[in-house]
Amino acid sequence: MVSHIGLVGLGKMGHNMRERLRNGGIEVTGYDPRPEVTDVPDLAGLVAALPEGRRVVWVMVPAGAPTRGVVDELGTLLSEGDIVIEGGNSHYPEDQARAAELAERGVGYVDVGVSGGVWGLENGYGLMVGGERDLVEHLMPVFDALRPEGPREEGFVHAGEVGAGHFAKMVHNGIEYGLMQAYAEGYELLAAKDIVTDVHGTMKAWTRGTVVRSWLLDLMVKALEEDPSLTAIDDWVDDSGEGRWTVDEAIDNAVPLPVISAALFARFSSRQTESPAMKAVAALRQQFGGHAVRPAGPASPGAGPLEPPA
Amino acid sequence: MVSHIGLVGLGKMGHNMRERLRNGGIEVTGYDPRPEVTDVPDLAGLVAALPEGRRVVWVMVPAGAPTRGVVDELGTLLSEGDIVIEGGNSHYPEDQARAAELAERGVGYVDVGVSGGVWGLENGYGLMVGGERDLVEHLMPVFDALRPEGPREEGFVHAGEVGAGHFAKMVHNGIEYGLMQAYAEGYELLAAKDIVTDVHGTMKAWTRGTVVRSWLLDLMVKALEEDPSLTAIDDWVDDSGEGRWTVDEAIDNAVPLPVISAALFARFSSRQTESPAMKAVAALRQQFGGHAVRPAGPASPGAGPLEPPA
Amino acid sequence: MVSHIGLVGLGKMGHNMRERLRNGGIEVTGYDPRPEVTDVPDLAGLVAALPEGRRVVWVMVPAGAPTRGVVDELGTLLSEGDIVIEGGNSHYPEDQARAAELAERGVGYVDVGVSGGVWGLENGYGLMVGGERDLVEHLMPVFDALRPEGPREEGFVHAGEVGAGHFAKMVHNGIEYGLMQAYAEGYELLAAKDIVTDVHGTMKAWTRGTVVRSWLLDLMVKALEEDPSLTAIDDWVDDSGEGRWTVDEAIDNAVPLPVISAALFARFSSRQTESPAMKAVAALRQQFGGHAVRPAGPASPGAGPLEPPA
Amino acid sequence: MVSHIGLVGLGKMGHNMRERLRNGGIEVTGYDPRPEVTDVPDLAGLVAALPEGRRVVWVMVPAGAPTRGVVDELGTLLSEGDIVIEGGNSHYPEDQARAAELAERGVGYVDVGVSGGVWGLENGYGLMVGGERDLVEHLMPVFDALRPEGPREEGFVHAGEVGAGHFAKMVHNGIEYGLMQAYAEGYELLAAKDIVTDVHGTMKAWTRGTVVRSWLLDLMVKALEEDPSLTAIDDWVDDSGEGRWTVDEAIDNAVPLPVISAALFARFSSRQTESPAMKAVAALRQQFGGHAVRPAGPASPGAGPLEPPA
Repeated sequence: MVSHIGLVGLGKMGHNMRERLRNGGIEVTGYDPRPEVTDVPDLAGLVAALPEGRRVVWVMVPAGAPTRGVVDELGTLLSEGDIVIEGGNSHYPEDQARAAELAERGVGYVDVGVSGGVWGLENGYGLMVGGERDLVEHLMPVFDALRPEGPREEGFVHAGEVGAGHFAKMVHNGIEYGLMQAYAEGYELLAAKDIVTDVHGTMKAWTRGTVVRSWLLDLMVKALEEDPSLTAIDDWVDDSGEGRWTVDEAIDNAVPLPVISAALFARFSSRQTESPAMKAVAALRQQFGGHAVRPAGPASPGAGPLEPPA
Repeated sequence: MVSHIGLVGLGKMGHNMRERLRNGGIEVTGYDPRPEVTDVPDLAGLVAALPEGRRVVWVMVPAGAPTRGVVDELGTLLSEGDIVIEGGNSHYPEDQARAAELAERGVGYVDVGVSGGVWGLENGYGLMVGGERDLVEHLMPVFDALRPEGPREEGFVHAGEVGAGHFAKMVHNGIEYGLMQAYAEGYELLAAKDIVTDVHGTMKAWTRGTVVRSWLLDLMVKALEEDPSLTAIDDWVDDSGEGRWTVDEAIDNAVPLPVISAALFARFSSRQTESPAMKAVAALRQQFGGHAVRPAGPASPGAGPLEPPA
Repeated sequence: MVSHIGLVGLGKMGHNMRERLRNGGIEVTGYDPRPEVTDVPDLAGLVAALPEGRRVVWVMVPAGAPTRGVVDELGTLLSEGDIVIEGGNSHYPEDQARAAELAERGVGYVDVGVSGGVWGLENGYGLMVGGERDLVEHLMPVFDALRPEGPREEGFVHAGEVGAGHFAKMVHNGIEYGLMQAYAEGYELLAAKDIVTDVHGTMKAWTRGTVVRSWLLDLMVKALEEDPSLTAIDDWVDDSGEGRWTVDEAIDNAVPLPVISAALFARFSSRQTESPAMKAVAALRQQFGGHAVRPAGPASPGAGPLEPPA
Repeated sequence: MVSHIGLVGLGKMGHNMRERLRNGGIEVTGYDPRPEVTDVPDLAGLVAALPEGRRVVWVMVPAGAPTRGVVDELGTLLSEGDIVIEGGNSHYPEDQARAAELAERGVGYVDVGVSGGVWGLENGYGLMVGGERDLVEHLMPVFDALRPEGPREEGFVHAGEVGAGHFAKMVHNGIEYGLMQAYAEGYELLAAKDIVTDVHGTMKAWTRGTVVRSWLLDLMVKALEEDPSLTAIDDWVDDSGEGRWTVDEAIDNAVPLPVISAALFARFSSRQTESPAMKAVAALRQQFGGHAVRPAGPASPGAGPLEPPA
């Protein structure tokens, strides 16, 4: 069983995880290109610092090229029996490809979807793991240190073979998009109705005893406490790759995903300064009905001209 | 069979319809509050100008209170056997209520959904009619003058009892929303792809022989001919009541309407200068993940910060 | 302050609420048409059993005609200063109408949206209240007995004027539809992927520490514990009026509601034994492309014929 | 300019295209594995049959492996200056890959999206072409023979570089999904309303003069003429790859596609004999509200139990 691991990537997530691991009794040697936070000068130094036997390196860097670069280099530094844990947000086919490459050298590969954000240091991280059973068992002390207090199965799962951990995390994030949008739509409708005079209070009253209570609702209430009309926050919403992958995956598997896709598209729309599609609709209405269109320019809010539909 | 009717409302639609009716051999006495276009000084004068027997008055004014006011007043001026035609965009329950009121005085009521917009004068108007069979038969010369050339059943239908004409027109407009949005989404995707160097030409090439050819596509091509990037058109799109009623009606009848409702919501979104819902989503992301949010202010386009999803 | 109320309707919800109120020190006289559960023979007996002063009757019967009937009869039995609480699921315009009628007789009206289902007896009920401030204050002992333990504002809100309580509950239920559908879509995608070998375990691992943790997720895990593939449960999902009203209301207020409406439509679809719309799409494909259609009959699952798209 | 081409694939589409090409004065040597329809025994024979100079082979076989196999083999048979036309439904990145491979041998590659289905023989085919300008110009006699009568630009476009032809066709098909679903939803709503007594007549009345008139509408009317309630048609709807690719592409480009994706998901749902997602929603409702669920089994249509929402 492992008691000392290497950790590559000491950003917001990695830094906190190192602390939680150490609090949980796991020795951690961290590497990061930034000299002020790293424990060792380079990946070779990291590997050299790990105890003989089954060496374990947790990779926690941005998905895509950075992860691929680190895993590739580790492949040349590690030996048969060692294990790489990919804890970032890799797309699961990347896991399958990396695992196959490392397997040629006898190096094991385990993918872990990690949830919990900035709250994970304190609350623990939800962990979804993919890989071979014996590797996962070897790594349990690490997972137990990271996951929340309480029964293991409420914050940890060995979801399946390599890729299953990131697949599960991907679906988790897709669900997250849908949940957030559902609360957001309800918030907008409450805020639009004059007979409701306490929107924040209404959502706060949902935090106990109701069907919709959740951690996201708690956060929504917290946000409204800080800024009751969200005046200081722009309506521009980024999306990470995982929401997109979720919809891609649904399409590949012919799974209908109306809610999660609608939530994703709402984010795309939120980032458009103008919508080519809606320009096209406006152009069509002008063509067939002589409906007034607005000349392009600074958006002028307010009710539009009343037009009989053609 | 009727050969002379009254027409109330000489706006964009009514004016053109008067001309097409006259071209079709129907005598028309028009009334409008604007002295420069009206043929008679008031509704009483309009009714007095119609020949004895079964008088017919076509009402073509905005839906809601204006239509209700005109129909109410006509109810006091007309006599048993006369007929009111509601040719505006009334919600069909209004038709049912008006018809019941007029029926108490022996005045008939027929509702007509009229499609064709500014092109109707030249091409003829698609007509969807609701009401009793004998009334509709009496009015056929009027409908034949208005409808497009060609077989009667390709531009006219007696769709059912009172209200069915406007119900059919309402559904027609709901479909129209969906069609327009489908073309608009396709346009946006073509325009977003660098390997496609001729978006206008591509859509024009669809106007013959393809599955998606339609009159709306012709209009789309015309709009792109006038303004290939729709530069001069704002992405603000109004909606008339009929799209909303279509979705309301679907909900009452438990009919799933994912496409038409999505098209309606896209219009709502197009008119928001900022989206309270998306502010809420941004606030939630900030709460749980420490994701950067944009301070409210003039929208700054461009790629957002890369954040690992929590 | 009130210490004894009447309660009309002792069904699943009313019965439990009577028990929680009594446990909380509120005396309750209950009325129900079923002799085996009622405390009094009729509404007149109920009113007579209440202490002099400001009598309070809580109505907890199905929305629509039943609620209207009870409130109407109470209006004739109660006197100036008495209060009716509508705790069912009335549509908020009904509240506004009932309140106006009772106000003519000096009887107060307060609407309360109640959340918590069968778990409310034990956990307490989330309460959203609409009405005049002094009435709400008078009723606080009742609300405090029903709401969950903990800070009052986490399970109770005076959301606004008459109607605001049921409006808030309506939005709560609309959000609930969206949340449930988001989890359900994620569940289906997990279950569709062969590399995920433990769907139940994966969702259980989300119950602590993750962004998507919630009471609904706990219930989802509980359902999967009892029946890991949901084999015994049909995919037929009812909908109550409140989801429909939420979308209707959004349409009236031009609020885009893509997620909540998609969730509602998914329920409509779930109850169709065949979809007229999809028959129409199949018919269209057959017309233009000679695509094979399936003759109507018992659904034959499995992959369809491979056809080049026309 | 080319006057004689090879054509690989004499299925439903290829066979008709050979006939239209020959009617248009283009000599065609066809190859198909089925001896009864082929003009030559194999691909080598096909290439040998073509006149010296710039040989042209049109490939019209199913997308994916079959197309790849044929193009690969042609690459070994053709010489510098020859041209392969991919007229099937290849995904556009396949075009880019094939073109690059053939370019190494000096063989040109042009991709053509072909629309028109079984009607193309008579009406002509809408053509969307991607590739280098000089190649496209060389091939114009072929394209002119295939496209509909009328102005060239109404049935043909050189949309852009290699891949643009199939990209345009992909978007065309995505739009097609949205259009079909819009008509289908409107059909279902008309059919659900008792006051509308002539659904077929109503849609037929839309075929002239209205905003929604189109070729698809004509086909819808034709289908209803043959089977007014679509009784003989199952509600099972296949989807080809192009609708899926359209949504995938939108996701890659952050283009919101609510209507086209909803139409795609409706097809996925139409093919499910039971919906895992809706089973999950039913299970959740049972958990929190004690709502009745239906035991799995033969679907029992009809209204569900009336339940107060929790």
